[in-house]
Amino acid sequence: MDISCTFDDMDTGLTQDRPIQTSSFYKEIEPVDGAGNHDVVNNITIPASGASDPRAQNSLQQSWEMNFQEAAIYLQEGENNDKFFTHPRSAHALSAYLFAHSHLFYVVELLTAVLLMLLSLSEAPAVPFLRLDVYVHATLELLALVMVVFELCMKLRWLGFHTFIRHKRTMVKTSVLFIQFIEAIVVLVRQTSHLRITRALRPIFLVDCRYCGAVRRNLRQIFQSLPPFIDILLLLLFFMVIFAILGFCLFSANTADHYFSTLENSIVSLFVLLTTANFPDVMMPAYSKNRWSCIFFIVYLSIELYFIMNLLLAVVFDTFNGVEKMKFKSLLLHKRSAVEHAFQLLVSRQRPDGVSLKQFDGLMRFYHPRMTPRDRFLTFKALNHSGAPMLSLQDFYKFYEVIGLKWKARRSGEHWFDDLPRTALLIFKGINLLVKSKAFQYAMYLVVAVNGIWILVETNMLNDGISWTHVVPWSYIIFLTIYGIEVLLKITGLGPITYFSSGWNLFDFSVTVFAFLGLIALAFDMEPFYFIVVLRPLQLLRLFKIKQRYRNVLDTMFELFPRMASLGLTLIIFYYSFAIVGMEFFADAVYPNCCDNSTVAASYRHKNVTTGNRTELQEGYYYLNNFNNILSSFVTLFELTVVNNWYITMEGVTSQTTHWSRLYFMTFYIVTMVVMTIIVAFILDAFVFRMNYSRKNREPLGDPEDEKGIVFETEVSQTEALQTLDFYKHTLGVTNLTSLQDMCVALERSGSSFVFLGRRSRTKSDLSMKMYEEEIQEWYEEYSRTNLQTDGTFHRELDSPDAGATNSIN
Amino acid sequence: MDISCTFDDMDTGLTQDRPIQTSSFYKEIEPVDGAGNHDVVNNITIPASGASDPRAQNSLQQSWEMNFQEAAIYLQEGENNDKFFTHPRSAHALSAYLFAHSHLFYVVELLTAVLLMLLSLSEAPAVPFLRLDVYVHATLELLALVMVVFELCMKLRWLGFHTFIRHKRTMVKTSVLFIQFIEAIVVLVRQTSHLRITRALRPIFLVDCRYCGAVRRNLRQIFQSLPPFIDILLLLLFFMVIFAILGFCLFSANTADHYFSTLENSIVSLFVLLTTANFPDVMMPAYSKNRWSCIFFIVYLSIELYFIMNLLLAVVFDTFNGVEKMKFKSLLLHKRSAVEHAFQLLVSRQRPDGVSLKQFDGLMRFYHPRMTPRDRFLTFKALNHSGAPMLSLQDFYKFYEVIGLKWKARRSGEHWFDDLPRTALLIFKGINLLVKSKAFQYAMYLVVAVNGIWILVETNMLNDGISWTHVVPWSYIIFLTIYGIEVLLKITGLGPITYFSSGWNLFDFSVTVFAFLGLIALAFDMEPFYFIVVLRPLQLLRLFKIKQRYRNVLDTMFELFPRMASLGLTLIIFYYSFAIVGMEFFADAVYPNCCDNSTVAASYRHKNVTTGNRTELQEGYYYLNNFNNILSSFVTLFELTVVNNWYITMEGVTSQTTHWSRLYFMTFYIVTMVVMTIIVAFILDAFVFRMNYSRKNREPLGDPEDEKGIVFETEVSQTEALQTLDFYKHTLGVTNLTSLQDMCVALERSGSSFVFLGRRSRTKSDLSMKMYEEEIQEWYEEYSRTNLQTDGTFHRELDSPDAGATNSIN
Repeated sequence: MDISCTFDDMDTGLTQDRPIQTSSFYKEIEPVDGAGNHDVVNNITIPASGASDPRAQNSLQQSWEMNFQEAAIYLQEGENNDKFFTHPRSAHALSAYLFAHSHLFYVVELLTAVLLMLLSLSEAPAVPFLRLDVYVHATLELLALVMVVFELCMKLRWLGFHTFIRHKRTMVKTSVLFIQFIEAIVVLVRQTSHLRITRALRPIFLVDCRYCGAVRRNLRQIFQSLPPFIDILLLLLFFMVIFAILGFCLFSANTADHYFSTLENSIVSLFVLLTTANFPDVMMPAYSKNRWSCIFFIVYLSIELYFIMNLLLAVVFDTFNGVEKMKFKSLLLHKRSAVEHAFQLLVSRQRPDGVSLKQFDGLMRFYHPRMTPRDRFLTFKALNHSGAPMLSLQDFYKFYEVIGLKWKARRSGEHWFDDLPRTALLIFKGINLLVKSKAFQYAMYLVVAVNGIWILVETNMLNDGISWTHVVPWSYIIFLTIYGIEVLLKITGLGPITYFSSGWNLFDFSVTVFAFLGLIALAFDMEPFYFIVVLRPLQLLRLFKIKQRYRNVLDTMFELFPRMASLGLTLIIFYYSFAIVGMEFFADAVYPNCCDNSTVAASYRHKNVTTGNRTELQEGYYYLNNFNNILSSFVTLFELTVVNNWYITMEGVTSQTTHWSRLYFMTFYIVTMVVMTIIVAFILDAFVFRMNYSRKNREPLGDPEDEKGIVFETEVSQTEALQTLDFYKHTLGVTNLTSLQDMCVALERSGSSFVFLGRRSRTKSDLSMKMYEEEIQEWYEEYSRTNLQTDGTFHRELDSPDAGATNSIN
Repeated sequence: MDISCTFDDMDTGLTQDRPIQTSSFYKEIEPVDGAGNHDVVNNITIPASGASDPRAQNSLQQSWEMNFQEAAIYLQEGENNDKFFTHPRSAHALSAYLFAHSHLFYVVELLTAVLLMLLSLSEAPAVPFLRLDVYVHATLELLALVMVVFELCMKLRWLGFHTFIRHKRTMVKTSVLFIQFIEAIVVLVRQTSHLRITRALRPIFLVDCRYCGAVRRNLRQIFQSLPPFIDILLLLLFFMVIFAILGFCLFSANTADHYFSTLENSIVSLFVLLTTANFPDVMMPAYSKNRWSCIFFIVYLSIELYFIMNLLLAVVFDTFNGVEKMKFKSLLLHKRSAVEHAFQLLVSRQRPDGVSLKQFDGLMRFYHPRMTPRDRFLTFKALNHSGAPMLSLQDFYKFYEVIGLKWKARRSGEHWFDDLPRTALLIFKGINLLVKSKAFQYAMYLVVAVNGIWILVETNMLNDGISWTHVVPWSYIIFLTIYGIEVLLKITGLGPITYFSSGWNLFDFSVTVFAFLGLIALAFDMEPFYFIVVLRPLQLLRLFKIKQRYRNVLDTMFELFPRMASLGLTLIIFYYSFAIVGMEFFADAVYPNCCDNSTVAASYRHKNVTTGNRTELQEGYYYLNNFNNILSSFVTLFELTVVNNWYITMEGVTSQTTHWSRLYFMTFYIVTMVVMTIIVAFILDAFVFRMNYSRKNREPLGDPEDEKGIVFETEVSQTEALQTLDFYKHTLGVTNLTSLQDMCVALERSGSSFVFLGRRSRTKSDLSMKMYEEEIQEWYEEYSRTNLQTDGTFHRELDSPDAGATNSIN
């Protein structure tokens, strides 16, 4: 690669070279500077190389800066999947945009939303120890709402009125805000809470947060899977009604059978049977009368539970597959389009086909302000695949692949102790070999296994309950010592950085530390920390490293974790809304012995019952599953999600309110069924995808010691490094160049060239890129075809008379 | 196509042309006929065309017949996926083979196996009204076992001793048979049943039946999915044990909490919690003491139920996918190999590259004895893709695709009434147009919908139970009349054949007929048939024809039905084995009020309880879920499969026996979990496969009116038909040629040529063929490569000196 040419080119031409397209922010910012307006800049005559008019120079510089900033914004929009119609179009939109895209803003946004949601802990049916007076929580709410108003104003300023009202999500948020505002004022005035079901809409503020993008995506996916889901659901409900009629006709003659006494009861019984929660009880009265009646229930369950419910999963899974692929496609094309927009802003009139290091560096200063000059230079080199002095559009398309790389020089030695004196080196070398040996690993597995059996036997012998004595068992100390020594050996043998970069080692380390803390807690009799002691068996999880399949499964588990967490958050948002509605209607509905007239009386009983001459306490406990405050509601809703015995809660509440309450519980069941089906489909999809991926690429999945993730290599020679340093120092005038200087010093010491490795962890997107390799090419072709038709404007700009004039000058 | 050439060729050369390879049956049958041995045949010199030595002619004819038969057997083996090492190798093996492959034999085999299984209805813990004396059922058993011995002898004769003991399934069967035989004799001698757990092995005889091939395949698939399943299961159980230790440590201090009082109880509670059956009860004692203890249960359920259980499904689904594809591949290649074997037996020395009509006809006489000559001729033409006078191996590879076709001439007119006089024709034409019109269809949907609402309202008004009056409600008569008229109109308008060929119409018809029977039952007061009346709402199912997606789903449902049925049968076989074991150990274990000392006492209670001054009957019903006879056991096992409340049955039985009984219930749960997971994976796979198929081929799925299935077209000209008739009459000497004669007459009437359509329904294999189109080519190439290496013998035969001699003669 002819490096010198790159810099020569830059040195001479850069400062005079004007951008081909001018940033939309520029026109407005110009007058402030007083250096003339846009038109002047575009018609400026460029003097010969070397000395140039400082005013024009300055304005040109500014024009470039604006371009860099806009390009960085485009690339950010591509990354965040923000639509381009929300792109800021003027200078004051830009400032609002920058403000609304700062992390401070995001954090405030998130905190406000969380505060609003947490308020329900203290509002009317409050958690006892968190109860606040009405005026306190209403004032807090008003404050939070004012914050939201402020946020919306910033957004209005950035988007402009027209875009603002076109943006659906923002409009929904605005109207919800309006209602909440009025209600909060009413509460403050009346000093008492009224029936406020609209509180169930509060999660909308959370969902709209920038940091909750994953939740938004989940919700979108759920809504996209809904139409086929509802179709099959109708089929399910239809069969339910048919069987309800059949069941009513067959079993209503039996007076002992209250499950089918009326058509409504039939329908409710069969709905609950769909969840299997009342099986086999629902069958028993009929079965005890006529043994053949079990056929009705077997047929019903076979059709509904074992066929249609699975069909539901199949349909959702199928839709999910398609949706995931389409999402990937649209994200990919959106990014491509962002890259094209940015590229157009970075190329200059003199070189319309390439981005030089100076421009790339300018871009990166806005896109990634904390990146060191060295990393910017290395990223530029990594992008530069063709070896030409400039980045072509084809090179630039890879922007998102290289941007997250962490650069490190490849060291000649592998170990952290290579630079130590000889004796120490030999010792550490020995430790290193030891901890890497199979024998050591299997010895540790053996220790863990023995420890596991020990714990089991020990626990089994404590048959009369555990007694927390202050005497620490000696086995505990012995095993802990072994683990401690192992951790120390590994840290010294591998070096702390290598050691902690493996998830499994981190796990080992933290379990050992916890066990140690537990030991201290035991020794010093700190009762509240006893629970740490019982975490000891987690150590056994290490045994699962032995088999490849478990490593895959556990790795997949960790990879899935962020997505699972966002699905969990989505579920919690549904919970929140249902909890609010539940609290508004069913707070304090159930209490001990509340439901003696219902069919589930026994579960709510809490009294002494005399049977013959024996007296026993009948403790039903179900009165604990109530909607008395938001925490209890959450637990109750989780129990409803697990489905088993949910009808006891439903019947209990129903017997204290009206039978319309069942609608709430049934709706909740269906909603959680949707979310749960999506979760199952997601796990299925993710796992099958990974399996297919590893089969397709014939690579063992996730070998924990080996390098996984994406690695880019870039070789830097000594002259190149010095030239870059020089270029940064003189041409760009950057002062803080320690990173580059360090590189030059290291290169000088080694004499020859250095290879730098850029690493980042592999994302789902990388896997998808490989999986859909062929299809991606098709998408690109299709995209560029449609782009040529619709984006004609883009190319027309190049042919504008203005551009023509520039050409004649050069 | 030069047809005359085909026949000329045949006429002259056929009778003298010798097969290139002689059937292995031939050598042995020769001496019986006295026409010389194998060697003589192979060295015979063929005289000039026309007059030939009648003895040699006869022997040649016989040699061909043997070849046809062996080829037919190869093709059958290919179809049934029988391994070629069980191919009969001699004449008496052939007769045993033919006997063991007759439908009579299959039926006897099936009946014997079913009889053996049904015996458990009458043995020791017998169904009351089916109880038989010991000597009766033992004698019956011995008889059935003797039948099995006879069947095995036939198999031994056909396979030969060496192959017999190499065949694993047969060996297992033999040893089970041996044990059962001894036990049956012991029972007969002692006149009392002892503990006979080996009865649980009886389903092996059923599984080995030819007609239960699908069950065998399911079992194989289950066993193939087991290894990954077990891996994940271990992970599941591991977490369970860890949480059990944690739970024991945390909750055993609470004396009210019997779920965690000992380590064993902890493990059992968490195992049951895995099935959600004891949730939230298991949490309640701890929860009532400390609200934060719910976190333990939420974490446990999230990890175990919502993550690992789904992972289980994902792993099975993934394995299932692979297994299905591999199975398809091996079946395909096996068939291809069968076709090659058959082809080799059918080609003659003079024309080693093709199969003529005469040989094909000979093959079909053995392969499909009931096929008419016309259909044989049409099948030959359908195979003959290249238009050459003979079938090449490439043509012959398609054998299995065309063999099931049903041939029908394409009629110029479409309706059955086209040949009627004009007035009638106009009327029927009108009816035809009417029933095909959208308006008529939607009117019928409206009627059905109104009927549905009517039934709902009517049933809802009978709130105090249904009363079977003899008065038939007038609405019933009106709707039934409308449906009856619709059925009549459709039958007359479309013609009975077209009408009944649609599944939906068949459904309509049978529901209407049932409703009519119900009406008669009501009118004539035949109480036992009242249940027919309640089937009326099934009519509503017709509403689901409106939307495409429902049609797809229901069509898929019908397509899946055979496979689902075989999975159901597989499940029943597992049930049977568990039922036998259950009966041997737990018969009469539970009865009303049996378990008053256990934690589930209430569910088994059946007595009056006085609470204060109120007396109520506590009826727990669970004593009905017992193992007292095989039918009750099946119902109990079904309840255990549904899982809800299964621990009540488990604890009830455990309290009356030992705590080792839990092992039985837990094992059963795990086994049904495997089978159920496979069922879910199967439904998922089948559905997703169909969706992908329809997407790939851009065809609407299952439009019920349109032609679906596979259609082949063959055009036959008049001269060709006459030539064929002539050929069959004179060359082959077939006497029953009505099918061909009919064709010739029809052709003469129409004057020109006819197009014949061969149809068959589409199978999963056809779908797979299209789905894996590209891979299939690879498989074939790979197959022919390995075949060239291993099957060198095959080609050497062609180059034998014998073959060389023949070449020199021509």
